[in-house]
Amino acid sequence: MAAWAERLAGVRGVLLDISGVLYDCDAGGGSAIAGSVEAVARLKQSHLKMRFCTNDSQKSRGELVGLLQQLGFDISEDEVTSPAPATCRILKERGLRPHLLIHERVRSEFDEIDTSNPNCVVIADAAESFSYQNMNKAFQVLMELENPVLISLGKGRYYKETSGLVLDVGAYMKALEYACGIKAEVVGKPSPEFFQAALQAIGVEAHQAVMIGDDIVGDVGGAQRCGMRGLLVRTGKFRPTDEHHPEVKPDGYVDNLAEAVALLLQHANK
Amino acid sequence: MAAWAERLAGVRGVLLDISGVLYDCDAGGGSAIAGSVEAVARLKQSHLKMRFCTNDSQKSRGELVGLLQQLGFDISEDEVTSPAPATCRILKERGLRPHLLIHERVRSEFDEIDTSNPNCVVIADAAESFSYQNMNKAFQVLMELENPVLISLGKGRYYKETSGLVLDVGAYMKALEYACGIKAEVVGKPSPEFFQAALQAIGVEAHQAVMIGDDIVGDVGGAQRCGMRGLLVRTGKFRPTDEHHPEVKPDGYVDNLAEAVALLLQHANK
Repeated sequence: MAAWAERLAGVRGVLLDISGVLYDCDAGGGSAIAGSVEAVARLKQSHLKMRFCTNDSQKSRGELVGLLQQLGFDISEDEVTSPAPATCRILKERGLRPHLLIHERVRSEFDEIDTSNPNCVVIADAAESFSYQNMNKAFQVLMELENPVLISLGKGRYYKETSGLVLDVGAYMKALEYACGIKAEVVGKPSPEFFQAALQAIGVEAHQAVMIGDDIVGDVGGAQRCGMRGLLVRTGKFRPTDEHHPEVKPDGYVDNLAEAVALLLQHANK
Repeated sequence: MAAWAERLAGVRGVLLDISGVLYDCDAGGGSAIAGSVEAVARLKQSHLKMRFCTNDSQKSRGELVGLLQQLGFDISEDEVTSPAPATCRILKERGLRPHLLIHERVRSEFDEIDTSNPNCVVIADAAESFSYQNMNKAFQVLMELENPVLISLGKGRYYKETSGLVLDVGAYMKALEYACGIKAEVVGKPSPEFFQAALQAIGVEAHQAVMIGDDIVGDVGGAQRCGMRGLLVRTGKFRPTDEHHPEVKPDGYVDNLAEAVALLLQHANK
């Protein structure tokens, strides 16, 4: 048993990243990571509170949950904290009308948002829609605004598809930030507000919670900055160099979600 | 007469940016900026040395010069300092075999370069070729290298086509830098080596030279950091906010190249 597992003592709530922890996505859908379906089922049967906390912005929450159910996961929409609904709340509160640079599959999440005469740009994981033409359009909207507002659904650097690593929204956010000389507002991990919203949904304090993810900076580092513990799985986008990250030191490394859950169930009560 | 024109005293050499100073480009070719054809002719007839210094990496040097000749400019290939030939020299010197993320029109500049089994990525203004697919390919090549090397032909934020402002290579360079956690090497303005190469070609010292461009950071700021003077034209990508730039203060502003040349011919000898 890893000595660090003692650090799981006192954990009451678990936040789970989805892509790279539950499953690996690809253009056709995705495949469950070995042991993850059972690990989620074990967590649900335990005394621990849990919530899914994802930056996935390429699919609507309904589509993502439907896909995971098909793969065998016990998951429902109201257990998922994801950036699109959080962004819609911000847009409404601030009277923002976005130009949307997003994937067609997530457009339904913005059905109730006024997109006429845009006064901001919202960027998500648009994948193939990150064309030169679409990037120029978003850039031009920002350059015509007196006070350009760019909202990014997450700022991930890359993620893993079954075919290999691919660029995430953060890379394109940086392109627009540089071109326009502005700083984006990030909705999603590692934003503290986003983690807090996930914790509030299960009524758990940060110091009682652990985040399990495959992104050492966005998941683990972000959670730790909020006062949570953070475990890094060696699945998804994990790379061996992550074990020598210059800034982020996870509370522990696990081979996969199954190992994380086994250790949690053994040590969280202590 | 603007008081600042006194600062042109002692100038012996002139570096001219091309896009936005000589002409505005567009998908079909471009159009000369009013007065610029005559201004170049006046400079050539004067005692001042001159050289064209461009970051244009979307066309081969031959194609760019051919286009400018069609527009009426007196210009030849051996008067132009541009990043593609400078990059080829670096690749050969260091034994680098690039994966090329470039526009088809500039590919001929790399005809003599070995691109098998790439050990670096070269990025230029690829325009429509900045697809999600092509960006992922370049990203994956970099992520597979133990010591990833990214060479960027310039780092411009944007430039002006007749249809409006469009993203330049710098935005995509930033996207790859962020995704890979690396820093690109820039060949082109504002790299001091690039300005120095242009000055050497005409045998003029930096303190005797002035750069005329439409990019306040890349042209004017870059030239000033090399000890040159820098004039900003109010053509091309110029925007009124450039006159209140927080960091770069040009030695002077001119409405266009024609005004710059008139002032130079009047004051440079003093």
